Amino acid sequence: MKALVYHGPGSKSWEEVPDARVIDDTDAVVRVETVTICGTDLHILKGDTPEVADGRILGHEAVGTVVSVGSGVKAVKPGDRVLVSCVSACGHCRFCREGRFGQCLGGGGWILGYMIDGTQAEYVRVPFADNSTYKVPAGTSDEEILMLADILPTSYEVGALNGRVGPGDTVAIVGAGPIGLSAILSARMFSPSHVVAIDLADARLDAAKSFGADLTVNNGRTDAVEFVRGITDGLGADVAIEAVGVPATFELCTELVRPGGRVANIGVHGHPATLHLESLWIRDITITTGLVDTFSTPTLLRLVAAHQIEAGRFVTHRFDLDDIEEAYKVFGNAADTGAIKVVMTRA
Amino acid sequence: MKALVYHGPGSKSWEEVPDARVIDDTDAVVRVETVTICGTDLHILKGDTPEVADGRILGHEAVGTVVSVGSGVKAVKPGDRVLVSCVSACGHCRFCREGRFGQCLGGGGWILGYMIDGTQAEYVRVPFADNSTYKVPAGTSDEEILMLADILPTSYEVGALNGRVGPGDTVAIVGAGPIGLSAILSARMFSPSHVVAIDLADARLDAAKSFGADLTVNNGRTDAVEFVRGITDGLGADVAIEAVGVPATFELCTELVRPGGRVANIGVHGHPATLHLESLWIRDITITTGLVDTFSTPTLLRLVAAHQIEAGRFVTHRFDLDDIEEAYKVFGNAADTGAIKVVMTRA
Repeated sequence: MKALVYHGPGSKSWEEVPDARVIDDTDAVVRVETVTICGTDLHILKGDTPEVADGRILGHEAVGTVVSVGSGVKAVKPGDRVLVSCVSACGHCRFCREGRFGQCLGGGGWILGYMIDGTQAEYVRVPFADNSTYKVPAGTSDEEILMLADILPTSYEVGALNGRVGPGDTVAIVGAGPIGLSAILSARMFSPSHVVAIDLADARLDAAKSFGADLTVNNGRTDAVEFVRGITDGLGADVAIEAVGVPATFELCTELVRPGGRVANIGVHGHPATLHLESLWIRDITITTGLVDTFSTPTLLRLVAAHQIEAGRFVTHRFDLDDIEEAYKVFGNAADTGAIKVVMTRA
Repeated sequence: MKALVYHGPGSKSWEEVPDARVIDDTDAVVRVETVTICGTDLHILKGDTPEVADGRILGHEAVGTVVSVGSGVKAVKPGDRVLVSCVSACGHCRFCREGRFGQCLGGGGWILGYMIDGTQAEYVRVPFADNSTYKVPAGTSDEEILMLADILPTSYEVGALNGRVGPGDTVAIVGAGPIGLSAILSARMFSPSHVVAIDLADARLDAAKSFGADLTVNNGRTDAVEFVRGITDGLGADVAIEAVGVPATFELCTELVRPGGRVANIGVHGHPATLHLESLWIRDITITTGLVDTFSTPTLLRLVAAHQIEAGRFVTHRFDLDDIEEAYKVFGNAADTGAIKVVMTRA
């Protein structure tokens, strides 16, 4: 089969590899029919996650058709159309029993396209298929369901829920790339007073408005902290969501929040940040980090099936799967191309 | 009257100052009869809180007798024996209505011995007396009630509650000074599996054992992270409580916690710390900072009155109020003197 293979920082290629096959009795093999590229894949290619081995097939998001399953798989069977989630889960360990599937101790967690071969391929082996795949609901498109593989549950759980967004809150979202836009949708579910999108690119801020940010700040031109304090009686945001993954944006979030506020980090970081405890110790700040657990995937599937979330609107560019390297170029150069999510499909 | 007056970093004196008097109609003036020194006072004297003005009377903990009240004070009257809490509260602002009294926007919060003159004096003006003083329960001693002015509610709210200590947890407490020992008592209320005290001084670790730590680590000799992982299936502590106030101990806490764990910072910090987001982003960590709100003071008063907390055992050294400068020396040199809390009394 063909697959997108990582060969160390900055290097990847679409090449012939051995076919995916069932290894463990809880595995399914899925024919990949719709697949996307995540900002995290770009972090891997930048070298931010040195634990990813040369030779690894990238990708942790897909929709496709089950072609074979191990003898222990109960929930899906060959022929089923399924969402392949970025998080696999043994379902039995301490953390799985707490719903903290992202930290699965039984061999799951975020492993696809990271610790094991991923979805940017013609076929993918999905471990723990019963807890790692979801049947595609009737009346939904592959493209919209694909957004539930990672960015929607990530922004919902690690952004809105960790940040405890609630009615009346002012929510500052730093970064209006795909995950930031998704965080806007997620925050909107909890009836905030204001969602303020903060970014350096006007094009992304325009997208943020269309996704539900009622206020935007280009922090290359305007002091975001002053702006947010200006709309919050001088106090700051109730919640600041970090959706970039660099120290400066994280540090900005810690300045944006009010006393008693919450900083929810979603970004994938490759470098340490400075935590200004000399001012924060007294301010009752809560900072959370997190990998998505995907406990919310069934909830989000219901919302998409009920047309309460327009998940398909993230998709700006479409390619044939064979053209994935071109898709990486377009996605990696989003500042010029305006790409939000790029989708590769296979007939 | 006599008072302990701050004169800039490293400088203070017990000197004659104008008498405390009622200024606002919600004030009480309290004759200070039992008073203590907090680690925070030492932070002020070190220069960690440059916002404290030259001429400020220090101290934010006292027990004494009300001598006069403004016309708006309803809850206490002259002759009442009261605890003077470190936190004053207007009771009406947004944050007071949420129980977040430490962040009071109406002129309260932690102000005594910080923004206004404090308790290390013969008399103290207590603003918002209805929300800032508590009658001393029958059958309790001044010394034990004095521990509810700051360290017990601080360790309970900012340590145990913010850290969400629960049954079965392994709780690592870094720093076994007064606030760390108090955090041990607080954590024990929630039935943890283990309370591990971590400090560089064996004498403080001995004290930690007597306050309820079942395990102790001298991290000058033993790797605390390895030790804690060794008793937690390699995972780390459920909760790490920072009770020192320097970057190294905060950073240690972020290494001590398991995936999904909580770091509760209690320490007063004068310098920024490094936050290793490159490893923490994926670990579902919650970090909290906080100033005590004292919403728990009535709860803790009930516990002391019911003899469920032996609050008096913090007191290791006693002085006449006139000898407060000597008391500072003994408290500031706790490594040699073995001081936990020093108490000054006035006949």
